[in-house]
Amino acid sequence: MVKEPARIRRLPEKSVGDRAAIEAILDEGFVCHVAYLADNRPVVIPTLYVRDGQSVLLHGSTASGIVMAARRGSALSVAVTHLDGVVVARSGFESSMNYRSVVIHGEGTLLDGSAHERALDRLVEGLIPGRLADIRRPTALELRRTAVVSMPIDIVSAKVSKGPPDDDEADLGTGVWAGVIPMSVSFGQPMPAPDLEPGIETPDYLIDFRRS
Amino acid sequence: MVKEPARIRRLPEKSVGDRAAIEAILDEGFVCHVAYLADNRPVVIPTLYVRDGQSVLLHGSTASGIVMAARRGSALSVAVTHLDGVVVARSGFESSMNYRSVVIHGEGTLLDGSAHERALDRLVEGLIPGRLADIRRPTALELRRTAVVSMPIDIVSAKVSKGPPDDDEADLGTGVWAGVIPMSVSFGQPMPAPDLEPGIETPDYLIDFRRS
Repeated sequence: MVKEPARIRRLPEKSVGDRAAIEAILDEGFVCHVAYLADNRPVVIPTLYVRDGQSVLLHGSTASGIVMAARRGSALSVAVTHLDGVVVARSGFESSMNYRSVVIHGEGTLLDGSAHERALDRLVEGLIPGRLADIRRPTALELRRTAVVSMPIDIVSAKVSKGPPDDDEADLGTGVWAGVIPMSVSFGQPMPAPDLEPGIETPDYLIDFRRS
Repeated sequence: MVKEPARIRRLPEKSVGDRAAIEAILDEGFVCHVAYLADNRPVVIPTLYVRDGQSVLLHGSTASGIVMAARRGSALSVAVTHLDGVVVARSGFESSMNYRSVVIHGEGTLLDGSAHERALDRLVEGLIPGRLADIRRPTALELRRTAVVSMPIDIVSAKVSKGPPDDDEADLGTGVWAGVIPMSVSFGQPMPAPDLEPGIETPDYLIDFRRS
């Protein structure tokens, strides 16, 4: 992220292969960072999201800035970033991170009625695939207290930086170590809630939980 | 992130204990998400950062939107988020993530001269503590091709969500499993670059690399 070397590729929109790469990046995440305007100033916050076909669904409380921006038709910007490694180059200039990132721009639409309830279901399944079948339906009060904003994955770009450092030739053979420290997200085994009744087994979909 | 339950605490600014909590969250990260205005629309992008005392230093290329916003004195918003677990509650409404997040608002200042060069050093040491002593100084061209924006950690809030699900009493004893899937970032052992000369040992500061 020090600069934009050749290995950082801005994928053009809408071609099939690129679309699959963008969707894979989106499907690996839980939380995106959303920028919106509040009093003409930019604000960024993290929030839960899920990809739903050609859109992302953003979760918010009813009074959140994202929801208010969607109500007034104001623009949003959504970023999802995964860090894959620390790039340890022979210069500071080339030292960086390996990462995969998607940024989406557009207007959000506040969902209501059955679209709202369906979106909440998608959010649960995006968070924990398989979970929906095990839990009760939302109450009317819960539905009123949550909001989901849908945003099309239309104006979108992806950046991927990977591989070893791209050092200047003049820096090779200088005796300085170079390489990458790999990074990944690890999930532990499920920890039961203290108030869980004895004898309830951990559901299969939570054991060895993985994201990609 | 479904709502803001009691366990999500917005820390008041500037008291010592809170300040330490905010700094610990900032010091654990590599990449923040920065929102800025471009043609009056919000844009969010990921970028490298480091905390430097009472400021964060944001890395950008000379022509990046963050740098242009800083040049014209326009507001920025910076978020750093760490995910600690998937909260598997007995309802969709209470299902969420455990996380720690800091959001900073303010104007950025584009650094120049010795402050710029010093900030680049801080960024290298923020990325890989101990690294600076092993690498050469930046060239004049490299200094011209990078930019660092400093932003005070002044208008700042932190949110922390942790612990088991906070299920409604009516949902207890319904036979549904509940708990948390812990999440953390793992670092692998350093992978040497393919062009590394034989006989160069991995520096101690890269072995068993950890962040917190």
